[in-house]
Amino acid sequence: MLFSRGVTKIKALIVDKGTVELRDTPVPRPDPDRDEILIRVKKAGICSTDFEVIEGMINFSGVLGHEFVGVVENDPSGGLEGKRVVGEINIPCWECSRCQKNQYKHCLNIETLGMRRRDGVFAEFLTLPRSNVHLVPKSITDNEAVFTEPLAAAVEIAEQYHLKPSEPITIIGDGRLGLVTARALWGMGYSIEVIGRHQDKLATLDLPGITAHLEADFPAEKHTDLPVVIEASGSTSGLEKALQLTAPRGKIIYKTTTAQSHEINLADLAIDEIQLLGSRCGPFAPALNLLARNDLHLEELITAEYSLDEAKLALKKAAQKSSLKVILKP
Amino acid sequence: MLFSRGVTKIKALIVDKGTVELRDTPVPRPDPDRDEILIRVKKAGICSTDFEVIEGMINFSGVLGHEFVGVVENDPSGGLEGKRVVGEINIPCWECSRCQKNQYKHCLNIETLGMRRRDGVFAEFLTLPRSNVHLVPKSITDNEAVFTEPLAAAVEIAEQYHLKPSEPITIIGDGRLGLVTARALWGMGYSIEVIGRHQDKLATLDLPGITAHLEADFPAEKHTDLPVVIEASGSTSGLEKALQLTAPRGKIIYKTTTAQSHEINLADLAIDEIQLLGSRCGPFAPALNLLARNDLHLEELITAEYSLDEAKLALKKAAQKSSLKVILKP
Ligand SMILES: [Zn+2]
Ligand SMILES: [Zn+2]
Ligand SMILES: [Zn+2]
Ligand SMILES: [Zn+2]
Repeated sequence: MLFSRGVTKIKALIVDKGTVELRDTPVPRPDPDRDEILIRVKKAGICSTDFEVIEGMINFSGVLGHEFVGVVENDPSGGLEGKRVVGEINIPCWECSRCQKNQYKHCLNIETLGMRRRDGVFAEFLTLPRSNVHLVPKSITDNEAVFTEPLAAAVEIAEQYHLKPSEPITIIGDGRLGLVTARALWGMGYSIEVIGRHQDKLATLDLPGITAHLEADFPAEKHTDLPVVIEASGSTSGLEKALQLTAPRGKIIYKTTTAQSHEINLADLAIDEIQLLGSRCGPFAPALNLLARNDLHLEELITAEYSLDEAKLALKKAAQKSSLKVILKP
Repeated sequence: MLFSRGVTKIKALIVDKGTVELRDTPVPRPDPDRDEILIRVKKAGICSTDFEVIEGMINFSGVLGHEFVGVVENDPSGGLEGKRVVGEINIPCWECSRCQKNQYKHCLNIETLGMRRRDGVFAEFLTLPRSNVHLVPKSITDNEAVFTEPLAAAVEIAEQYHLKPSEPITIIGDGRLGLVTARALWGMGYSIEVIGRHQDKLATLDLPGITAHLEADFPAEKHTDLPVVIEASGSTSGLEKALQLTAPRGKIIYKTTTAQSHEINLADLAIDEIQLLGSRCGPFAPALNLLARNDLHLEELITAEYSLDEAKLALKKAAQKSSLKVILKP
């Protein structure tokens, strides 16, 4: 065990008032009062949200990162040691008014890995309460398991809202979010169309049942009756496009958490009685079930892998427009 | 009958390329192929949408107006003559792809009274297909019946979306739309809060079960967990306010059809998983049922009544900030 081996410091990528640096930091100690365990990170994924933290749109100081797969290093009760796990990123207080309504994800005192009041996963080790942890079946590789969190966020759409199997789903955006969402909902049996701006990214969607279109080839004048449109471009024009494409009484799923103001004309939302439906993080168990079928091939979205020592290089790579998922390996 | 009496011209308030004038226009003739009847207008209501037509935000030429109560002057089949009626404002084609999906309100070839391809009600007479017409029970006065259309638009919210009787409804806006919506949903048994900016308008809501608040007395910091918020202010700040007030997983009903672009930050919609739900015109039958109970007292919202000859004066009055409903009497 780590402590008994005399290790007192670990490496971690730390955000602090606009700077991001690899530093030595004390080994995190599992809090027995919160039934926490210690996890050694095997692989971690860089996500757009991490850049929002770095750029200060999310106000946070501490270890960055929230997408990971790891192995339990220390479980005070012993049961999980040596097991390969992934972890839900939100830690509720279990006591506030929202937790009492079972709205744990919207807890008033929420801690979120690498985002709010809780050190994240771009480090050699992290702690998590036992109830956040899910075992990873053997058939899922590390390179797939590291996608559990973004995959769960896609599954959440179907968890929250009624998506009819008979209705095609149109996804706007061919970035990380759009491509993972496409594969997730494809894996759930939906027929998927993706509209993007990058021929090379759309080309990754070579699965029967997913149709990819360059935006220029998918004019809004010709497609005005789509039943379900997911805005996953994160761009300010994405929602406007979605409003044009969506049928009267259709649904637009809104996934963009970036705190960005933009000009928009929402009259068509009322006129066409469209539903604009917000959606965020989701449940890990069904995401792992999807991964265990081994047909999503999410590892194809990995652009590059870096060691934690090269973390700043990895961030630079992940920020490039041409990059999809960049992996850190502590 | 009108034609047999030799009448060939009627007075009507006509919008034409940015001008609005009272003119003599030919008596409208019911089209037998569309099973139309001729209706004499008793009273008509001026609505914010009429100003959008005048200002060109809705592109239309012809007789203005869509809210009315009248008496059937000529029914080719005889059955309705002399009956007091109100009329649904949308006339579908019954044939296009949307009509085939029973989405008549979103018909691709829709005609709408005083808005799209169809003369409206600020005139002595109008024609309507029989299927648009509803008989007005005796117990409902003309001054109440003229509110059927805006009342139906409020009922539509509950027609489209699940509003739980146990959840209070908060309405932002104390204009015509907000006050009618408040009374309608109050009439359906919901507990209602209205947030407005005008003490005098809020004072009209003196019904047990409706609470009215001046916006300044209802800070968003103190009220962040409202389950259902209706944006009925039509102002650009209304939606922003609604996003602040609405609980995670709560619903915002969006009624503003004004084609107006504005700056907005929608991140909280995704983060709090809020539903922004568009809603428009609604069903007349349940609206008439509500009116027949005679407890909504919508006539209290009438600011003034003018003859059709004074139509331009009436428009001026209706445009004043202090005005609620202004009535035209042909
Ligand atoms: Zn992420
Ligand atoms: Zn809580
Ligand atoms: Zn109206
Ligand atoms: Zn039609």
